[in-house]
Amino acid sequence: MARKRKSKQREGNEIEFSRIVAFSDGVFAIAITLLVLNLEIPEHLASGEIAHSLWEQREFFFAYALSFAVIGRFWLVHHRFFSEVRAFDGRLIVLNLLYLGWIVLIPFSSEVLGEYGGTAAAIVLYAANLTGVVLTGMWMAADARRAGLVETSPGAHREQRYRSLFIATVFLVSIPVAFVAPGIAAFIWLALFFDPAARFASAEESH
Amino acid sequence: MARKRKSKQREGNEIEFSRIVAFSDGVFAIAITLLVLNLEIPEHLASGEIAHSLWEQREFFFAYALSFAVIGRFWLVHHRFFSEVRAFDGRLIVLNLLYLGWIVLIPFSSEVLGEYGGTAAAIVLYAANLTGVVLTGMWMAADARRAGLVETSPGAHREQRYRSLFIATVFLVSIPVAFVAPGIAAFIWLALFFDPAARFASAEESH
Amino acid sequence: MARKRKSKQREGNEIEFSRIVAFSDGVFAIAITLLVLNLEIPEHLASGEIAHSLWEQREFFFAYALSFAVIGRFWLVHHRFFSEVRAFDGRLIVLNLLYLGWIVLIPFSSEVLGEYGGTAAAIVLYAANLTGVVLTGMWMAADARRAGLVETSPGAHREQRYRSLFIATVFLVSIPVAFVAPGIAAFIWLALFFDPAARFASAEESH
Amino acid sequence: MARKRKSKQREGNEIEFSRIVAFSDGVFAIAITLLVLNLEIPEHLASGEIAHSLWEQREFFFAYALSFAVIGRFWLVHHRFFSEVRAFDGRLIVLNLLYLGWIVLIPFSSEVLGEYGGTAAAIVLYAANLTGVVLTGMWMAADARRAGLVETSPGAHREQRYRSLFIATVFLVSIPVAFVAPGIAAFIWLALFFDPAARFASAEESH
Repeated sequence: MARKRKSKQREGNEIEFSRIVAFSDGVFAIAITLLVLNLEIPEHLASGEIAHSLWEQREFFFAYALSFAVIGRFWLVHHRFFSEVRAFDGRLIVLNLLYLGWIVLIPFSSEVLGEYGGTAAAIVLYAANLTGVVLTGMWMAADARRAGLVETSPGAHREQRYRSLFIATVFLVSIPVAFVAPGIAAFIWLALFFDPAARFASAEESH
Repeated sequence: MARKRKSKQREGNEIEFSRIVAFSDGVFAIAITLLVLNLEIPEHLASGEIAHSLWEQREFFFAYALSFAVIGRFWLVHHRFFSEVRAFDGRLIVLNLLYLGWIVLIPFSSEVLGEYGGTAAAIVLYAANLTGVVLTGMWMAADARRAGLVETSPGAHREQRYRSLFIATVFLVSIPVAFVAPGIAAFIWLALFFDPAARFASAEESH
Repeated sequence: MARKRKSKQREGNEIEFSRIVAFSDGVFAIAITLLVLNLEIPEHLASGEIAHSLWEQREFFFAYALSFAVIGRFWLVHHRFFSEVRAFDGRLIVLNLLYLGWIVLIPFSSEVLGEYGGTAAAIVLYAANLTGVVLTGMWMAADARRAGLVETSPGAHREQRYRSLFIATVFLVSIPVAFVAPGIAAFIWLALFFDPAARFASAEESH
Repeated sequence: MARKRKSKQREGNEIEFSRIVAFSDGVFAIAITLLVLNLEIPEHLASGEIAHSLWEQREFFFAYALSFAVIGRFWLVHHRFFSEVRAFDGRLIVLNLLYLGWIVLIPFSSEVLGEYGGTAAAIVLYAANLTGVVLTGMWMAADARRAGLVETSPGAHREQRYRSLFIATVFLVSIPVAFVAPGIAAFIWLALFFDPAARFASAEESH
């Protein structure tokens, strides 16, 4: 009740609303670009050692590519979610900030992953970070739906829930695997590039 | 007098106005994202030392979370203030730049706090930085109101003044405490997550 | 078929579309600005050594100027391409992210080029990075055209293809040259500042 | 002639135009925020040394404040100039990129100034950098006016020219002074915070 009264319609508050979105986009764009700072080359190498030194950094390049894809994907999900938001209140803004707080941590977790990719600690940190993103995202979406701030078709809603659950499962599964076989855990994450939710949801729709 | 003549209405100058807001949002977004650069992991650790090394950094994680919340909150206040601005002049732009100058210092103060969290110097630096933000914000708001640039209901105005005073008080109180018991001063800042102003102002409104 | 159904017209989805563009602009702006972090000055120099130390960094200044021009030029091409986009789908967004992933690598390749400018490894890395940008850009443009997402006059289309081919050729040619005479390869890139495509295409138009 | 044909009116190309402005704002916002990275605190200090170490950095704080004010001021000038732009062409975009290339160098020049503030080399570098900004800005403004891209009242035009000449003079004067008395040169820059142009131009207007 108290909440409804304070929520503002997106229509008529376009500038205020687009500031939230622009701020989020800014944070996403900076976080994804800061990933490049994890790539470094030692100074004063002999000219024959450069190629070797770059090859030595292959774990950092892998972490760069993975994290770029991951942040890009989260940005996409965020993008779709906010395109359905019709009204906003202080609580949505705060939850969105919390969500961004997890996103901004990714360049750090990615650095640890590049440096110590074969260890359980690095895998667990990375998986925990991304699980934080996904769970906060689900919380934000569920909360906005309960407060009537979004206008989602039941199909799209189901698709989003499937997708979030799928992503969270992939990361949670990788954590125990990291303790047994840290070298394999990161490969489990490749499953993220498939999107069963889209296929599943569109299969339903065609009935 | 001279000032009135030079102020521009927001309506009819939307692009120019939104540039000021977009620039401010950009600075907020970059400052909040640069916080992640304060988190670092030493190179060449043995695989058993990584978790320990991350745990050693807990003060940096605390500083990260605190500063993320603090910058996020200031962004929110800035956001609300500018949603009420109806006209702008050169003076508002300059005061806004001064305000942003304090905001951009926060990643540095936060780094000092993460490195030397238990010392009076770090606490005083951090509190002085945030007090700078709050006082400049109050100055900007008061100046804009005097020049007739904002359109605030008396209730909202009172709420903003209470909130700013409350935040400034919390930080100013923490400075002497830092000299006596530096470990306790940071906990005083947790009071910030309560917002007595909102409750107080809405209580008044219902009369 | 399946793709057409999912694409959204730009008109009527302006906010969603402009978020993609704003995110891309943000990434370009950050990547181009991070170039400055490759410039450094050693601490504790005697006052007579400073000018000399700056002069020693001339390769870094060259790399800065080159990469600034290169990212600026890519931004321009991206800018023009997106000004012709009339509809978008998930695939365009993903290809755009892949494109940005190459752009964000440039500050790193540029750092290697500044540090090891006279070596084949640095030249090849830089050329490979830019070739990655160009080829992904051509892929994105071709894909969007096939899916009917852009509205390009045949002349503009030809101009873009000529330009991309020209840029890719310049970089690919520089790779073998780098192995024979690394000092010369970078000068081949100066050809980029001529734009034969524009002249060629407008010559055609006047027929 | 050839140029006129290619220029686009701002009206009807608002999105393309606002992308140029948004990109510029992004670069300004990032450059101004990166200034904070020049502030650093050594690790592993004893708790009594922290305040002293911060005090030792006072030159860096001075450079931070100066460069923040300088970039902020240039942003303001850029802001005003683009609010008068009515049409744009490729040349304006390229000159704008060149202008931004000088802006992005400021965090580096500022770092050198913080580290070696009392030396001629640091002062000359800083002054050369800012002179680069001002001259490119004047070139861009003159070029746009000649091509009929801006719509400036004669008074505003005169004001801009006075201001640019005043700023350039201040920096050019400081260069020879730096060789004789480097400690004094930076104080000459304080003249920048007066704006004789505004007063002069408005005096003229009132006739």
